[in-house]
Amino acid sequence: MNVKDNTFVTPEGIEFLHKTHQMIIDDTLLKGTNIHHKTIDYKTPDQLQVAFDLSIDDKGLDYDRILDMFSSTIKHSLNTAHPRFFGQLYSGRQLESLTSSWVVEALNTNVHTYECGPVFTLTENYVIKKLTEKLGFLDGDGIFLPGGTMCNFCALHLARFAYDNNLREVGLCQSQKMIIFTSEAAHYSVKTGASFLGFGTDNVIFVDTDDSGRMIPRDLDDKIRETKEQGRVPLCVMATAGTTVLGAYDPLEELASICRNYNIWLHVDASWGGSVIFSDVHKHLMRGVENKYQIISFNIRADSVSISFHKLLGVQLQCSALMAKNKDVLRQSNAVDASYLFHEEKHYDISYDIGKKTMQCGRKADGYKLWVLWKAKGNDGLEKMVNKYFDIAKYFTERLAERREFKLVAPKVIPAIKRRMVEAGSLSISFQPLESKGYVNFFRIILNNPLTTRRDVDLILDEIDRLGNNL
Amino acid sequence: MNVKDNTFVTPEGIEFLHKTHQMIIDDTLLKGTNIHHKTIDYKTPDQLQVAFDLSIDDKGLDYDRILDMFSSTIKHSLNTAHPRFFGQLYSGRQLESLTSSWVVEALNTNVHTYECGPVFTLTENYVIKKLTEKLGFLDGDGIFLPGGTMCNFCALHLARFAYDNNLREVGLCQSQKMIIFTSEAAHYSVKTGASFLGFGTDNVIFVDTDDSGRMIPRDLDDKIRETKEQGRVPLCVMATAGTTVLGAYDPLEELASICRNYNIWLHVDASWGGSVIFSDVHKHLMRGVENKYQIISFNIRADSVSISFHKLLGVQLQCSALMAKNKDVLRQSNAVDASYLFHEEKHYDISYDIGKKTMQCGRKADGYKLWVLWKAKGNDGLEKMVNKYFDIAKYFTERLAERREFKLVAPKVIPAIKRRMVEAGSLSISFQPLESKGYVNFFRIILNNPLTTRRDVDLILDEIDRLGNNL
Repeated sequence: MNVKDNTFVTPEGIEFLHKTHQMIIDDTLLKGTNIHHKTIDYKTPDQLQVAFDLSIDDKGLDYDRILDMFSSTIKHSLNTAHPRFFGQLYSGRQLESLTSSWVVEALNTNVHTYECGPVFTLTENYVIKKLTEKLGFLDGDGIFLPGGTMCNFCALHLARFAYDNNLREVGLCQSQKMIIFTSEAAHYSVKTGASFLGFGTDNVIFVDTDDSGRMIPRDLDDKIRETKEQGRVPLCVMATAGTTVLGAYDPLEELASICRNYNIWLHVDASWGGSVIFSDVHKHLMRGVENKYQIISFNIRADSVSISFHKLLGVQLQCSALMAKNKDVLRQSNAVDASYLFHEEKHYDISYDIGKKTMQCGRKADGYKLWVLWKAKGNDGLEKMVNKYFDIAKYFTERLAERREFKLVAPKVIPAIKRRMVEAGSLSISFQPLESKGYVNFFRIILNNPLTTRRDVDLILDEIDRLGNNL
Repeated sequence: MNVKDNTFVTPEGIEFLHKTHQMIIDDTLLKGTNIHHKTIDYKTPDQLQVAFDLSIDDKGLDYDRILDMFSSTIKHSLNTAHPRFFGQLYSGRQLESLTSSWVVEALNTNVHTYECGPVFTLTENYVIKKLTEKLGFLDGDGIFLPGGTMCNFCALHLARFAYDNNLREVGLCQSQKMIIFTSEAAHYSVKTGASFLGFGTDNVIFVDTDDSGRMIPRDLDDKIRETKEQGRVPLCVMATAGTTVLGAYDPLEELASICRNYNIWLHVDASWGGSVIFSDVHKHLMRGVENKYQIISFNIRADSVSISFHKLLGVQLQCSALMAKNKDVLRQSNAVDASYLFHEEKHYDISYDIGKKTMQCGRKADGYKLWVLWKAKGNDGLEKMVNKYFDIAKYFTERLAERREFKLVAPKVIPAIKRRMVEAGSLSISFQPLESKGYVNFFRIILNNPLTTRRDVDLILDEIDRLGNNL
């Protein structure tokens, strides 16, 4: 029988579940994190379309063939948990996160109303409260959204609402031009958000950065002043705590002073770097380099902050939250009139229906995953994790400084090494140029994998050296 | 040791994974779908905050306490797989979908570039191709997005880009007012999208519906004409195939003719109802009632269509796709300049980097989950599934017609029955009023659970009767 409706309570169905589970452990967790296995068994799109059976037929598959399909999926995928995967801002696999996602999938429910997700609602509220406290938003609120890009989009939405709440009804057509300021090192979602929300990409002004990729406050001030002189509205500054390529933290205190001076919204995209709030040693980065080690809680004087916990902390993808200093702005700016979901005659206090705080309707229980990891590791465990990644980055930087052979020769060298690296499967690292700084293609090494040891990062240099030989 | 970095390859870690897996099977799949267990062991927010330990401490938890936490999570959650859960547009649990989500979570990667998700990229491309073919978009394209709301938002973005691609750069400020038409029965995301994308909710015009909730074409035509006469731009029509409350299908053929006549974008929000394309018997609903049983492939003459496969088909949340008739419009309207992700010097054909077609950066492998279910069930299996849900709805409607005692007495009756229902845990059904039709609160019964039998739907009537006794 191919259509297996109703059969998952049968022994055959249970056996299928067990076999899938065992395959996941063997192939993704054990083999996938073993340094004697490749980071990827790479095939080009053309090769993979031959090796992997994509076709869908009229008839379905029995369980054994579905297992084959899963096995083939795992075989041809990237091992992002591998200790030598340094390619993206997410990496490694936390056991507690992985299992929390299993619970989320098993319960397969929505987090728009308390009724649909009682535990998921309370745990999301709880972590949002803890996060807003850590940020010094003592009367703040927040919401989980599907990714850092959506957080930036929603922050633009909040900034506009705070500037003029009538715009929600009347729209932008026939309004004054509104200008968004961000650094040239900011994530591309600031620009796509400007398009999506109707501001237009021409109305994003890019502020210069210093050599380490930090926004230059004086340049921001100058550009805001010019904007006002031209009769345009400076709407908001989209600062970054942990830029995508260089990992730079904008000088938030100085930017906040400028924003207060001109009375404009400050959003901090801390998607990559915001998880330093869990470390007493490193949380000063969210404030500025002063006051090291002395801060109890932050007040970075921003209006909103977003953090992606699937990045530095390794919560399962996706787990991004947007926190606002003003507790009402999320609910007011996203207010909906949907009597089939949110109505007054329910059997409980509907202020718990957090779907009213977001533009999404259906929502995954992403907040629960952070709650599980945080509770399982404790404050101490998360701090230790963050500190470990900083330590290993420091170690790597020191080793790199000792190696005189690492100098850029020509723009084409890095893509050629990358091609060999992918074929060897020994490492996974991404590269990119940084034209604004005059850098040609270079490797971006990301060190936030719990399995990565000093031995693995030593290998980075040896292996790049080896792969680059004879080029 | 509380911080368990690196330990998931230990026997203790493996045991924790096995125990979590077994708990999920026992508690969510076996107990959670057993009709002798409740649909929910309901507690109010206040009660649950006592019964469930939310607190996070400095110290972490050992594996046994994490297991207790998962057990408590499952105990207090809604059993959305239960055969008597009729409360939301998602329901039931398909074994193949559940396991596909395990594979997605185990691999924990992104689907922005081919490099990060080779299999997930090819499978998403493959199902998008199959879906666009089914819709008659022979030269179309599509993208998976996190939920039906995001699909509607993106459709508005496409409509605006198609109307004037300069708006992407210059923005809406100082442009003409653009009007969005939708029916009063459409999902609330049309209105929140109008706010989010900068059009303003005042610029949404609601078209009247007939008694079954279908948009009235003549009224649409009149309202478009008036809009033009007032010098405003009619931008798009947001039609619905399967409205949220009544499940109505707008008359798409007639709406398409009107849209072609005025040269405006037609989006079909088929989030709930679009999965009928898998059934030869029911796919005519996406066309209009004519031409029953005779259609090979559709061409509903819409410009874009969105379908949420986590609804009728029961793919794990979330799994929503937006398909566009014009193959270039997604890529052009979302074009990004992000050299750290998308650059020319990669070791493969970068046209496979599907992240360029969407406003998101990080993306879950939602398309893979549909591909797995479709391949596992086959075309025949999906058709059988859709037909089964229509059959059981027909059966229920017939039984309801026989029961003379079901008449609405007063607006307060339904919330009172719902309160008793939640306490009994015997059924899960949502209610809402429909003021535009003069309906007071009524129960909305949703029948798309693979486990639900005729016996379960017979119980709906008996149980509502019993619960409503003596009110």
